[in-house]
Amino acid sequence: MTADPDTFERRAAAARERLRERGDDGLVLFPSRNLRYLADHGEEPAERHFLLFVPADGEPVFLVPELSGEQVREASWVTDVRTWGDAEDPVPRIADIAAELGMDAGHLLVDDTMWALFTQDLRTALPEATFGLASEVLGDLRVRKDDAELDAMERAAAVADETVRDLRELGDGAVGLTEAELAAEIEDSLERHGGTGVSFDTIVGAGPNGAKPHHHHSDREIRPGEPVVLDFGTRVDGYPSDQTRTLVFGGEPDEQVREVHEVVQEAQQAGVDAVEPGVTAAAVDAAAREVIEAADYGDEFIHRTGHGVGLDVHEAPYIVAGNERELEPGMVFSVEPGIYLPGEFGVRIEDLVVVTEDGCARLNHTDRGWEC
Amino acid sequence: MTADPDTFERRAAAARERLRERGDDGLVLFPSRNLRYLADHGEEPAERHFLLFVPADGEPVFLVPELSGEQVREASWVTDVRTWGDAEDPVPRIADIAAELGMDAGHLLVDDTMWALFTQDLRTALPEATFGLASEVLGDLRVRKDDAELDAMERAAAVADETVRDLRELGDGAVGLTEAELAAEIEDSLERHGGTGVSFDTIVGAGPNGAKPHHHHSDREIRPGEPVVLDFGTRVDGYPSDQTRTLVFGGEPDEQVREVHEVVQEAQQAGVDAVEPGVTAAAVDAAAREVIEAADYGDEFIHRTGHGVGLDVHEAPYIVAGNERELEPGMVFSVEPGIYLPGEFGVRIEDLVVVTEDGCARLNHTDRGWEC
Repeated sequence: MTADPDTFERRAAAARERLRERGDDGLVLFPSRNLRYLADHGEEPAERHFLLFVPADGEPVFLVPELSGEQVREASWVTDVRTWGDAEDPVPRIADIAAELGMDAGHLLVDDTMWALFTQDLRTALPEATFGLASEVLGDLRVRKDDAELDAMERAAAVADETVRDLRELGDGAVGLTEAELAAEIEDSLERHGGTGVSFDTIVGAGPNGAKPHHHHSDREIRPGEPVVLDFGTRVDGYPSDQTRTLVFGGEPDEQVREVHEVVQEAQQAGVDAVEPGVTAAAVDAAAREVIEAADYGDEFIHRTGHGVGLDVHEAPYIVAGNERELEPGMVFSVEPGIYLPGEFGVRIEDLVVVTEDGCARLNHTDRGWEC
Repeated sequence: MTADPDTFERRAAAARERLRERGDDGLVLFPSRNLRYLADHGEEPAERHFLLFVPADGEPVFLVPELSGEQVREASWVTDVRTWGDAEDPVPRIADIAAELGMDAGHLLVDDTMWALFTQDLRTALPEATFGLASEVLGDLRVRKDDAELDAMERAAAVADETVRDLRELGDGAVGLTEAELAAEIEDSLERHGGTGVSFDTIVGAGPNGAKPHHHHSDREIRPGEPVVLDFGTRVDGYPSDQTRTLVFGGEPDEQVREVHEVVQEAQQAGVDAVEPGVTAAAVDAAAREVIEAADYGDEFIHRTGHGVGLDVHEAPYIVAGNERELEPGMVFSVEPGIYLPGEFGVRIEDLVVVTEDGCARLNHTDRGWEC
């Protein structure tokens, strides 16, 4: 992260203030994006109890495996780092720490992604506590990106844009490659342009595979004239990119492909045009959906229009019917309508946008057409 | 997976039988290794409810996002696949399905890794149900590997062995590389020899970084004469490898490094020698630990001796003091003692072993010394 160390303490202070306002007693985090957001800790979840207790009042306490103690003490602004050994039962330690912090009989918010293995132990250790989700407090903080976050996401988007350019340059050179081979090319290109790994499993959906929105890639070879859904991203300073283009590599697409692609492009533009502060997430979804419904493909647009993007590649705000949350400057989300014709093909077009004071700005800047 | 499709139905039948024996009412799984084990589903967890209900009596039911419906129907032996749309609340659907399957007021076992986001919704939808962990039933099935699983793990171990050979060939060519650069070399080598991705974050711990068991890699350059902890793995047919060597690239290690390395090698051999059916996991831990304690490094061996390996790179049986579980043929786990001298260096040596009818066999076959 490019964020300076104080950033994390500032975020934790804001979280504690919000806990107090709501009357909650504390957060219990494990290796999650929330932990990264508050404590700059990037470890993946594993089977050992690795917990950060953040009381509404008082200083946070880490309880981590002995073998992680030295690293956490070196890296974290949290000064109270306690360890437990592999031959020890961590449950009584949880009970002791929670009691010491006044969290043992309170309402505690746990990571939305916390494993049942740990929530069950929290319930065992703290039979009088009640539980909610950390997103109730941290979601509101994380949803508005600060300058360092926006900078990282712009750079991550720029890497993805470079890869879209590489794909267009490849052009009919992609015909005959398998989806898996093209996915490997994409991942190489992302690394070459400065990305770190992928932010989600790369999607290359050629022809009928494009009609399955969460298809990843297969040994199917790419054929001339067919649309290929290309949805991928990487990370820069921990923040992801995520955009989709649907390209035709070599040959000419048929009339229906052209028509559907045109409709999705218009829907995507309508969604982006609808974004400004005060508008609801649902209204953005509706704006994109109306274009597709008007073209009689409403039943083939089988997902929401978008999702927030931040440390998590899917987070609030979800751009979906029923979400009456009003957009605010600094929110970043995808606008990605699609049309899926099972057994035939699919088209999806996606950019990330950031809400500005009077509208929005796209983070992705490559052409949205099918032509290479 | 190389397993044939019937394998998954057979596993599910065994799981249901065990649920009935225990008097549990069903499993609720989400995208997890358990779901892969029972239903050959390899998706990563995400924010949409993607659940498999497996009643103790009766047929399983999938409830998946609309956009995944076609894929799940195509790929799964489970024939009852229901979908929910993004604009819908899945909680009432959960309540309905559980009631239909007689699971709404029962004792349900959820994935150990299930996110709180979903366990909270299960508690909301099913206020009369009680909850345990799926490992209570599936752990016992998954802990004994079948032939297809062992075959995949042997091939994954062979890939890791090839990479150890590549590292030794690199020899003093590694001096001056950063840990991160060497990690990239390792990951390239794993792919080149037929692995898919990494089974966990590659560890390259040079000099003092080797004293932090869960250090990944940094920009520190590798120096002649210092020990470098190299702990990495890849996947073959979904199954991981995981082994560790501590090598010296160029130059000569000092006396203490030689001594510590020798002690760890002996401890690792003692751990492996202790493995046979009927012996407890704790006894294997003790066998390795005694060697290190006898050499006066007991306080510097700050983790358990090993962990089971299967679809999860860390799973039962854990080779740790207090675990009185008896070893059985077909169990696969790591034997990986280490000595960590903070600020100086660390040494860890790890092989996977499979318990056989009368002892065990190592899955890794490269030299365990420090010499390149």
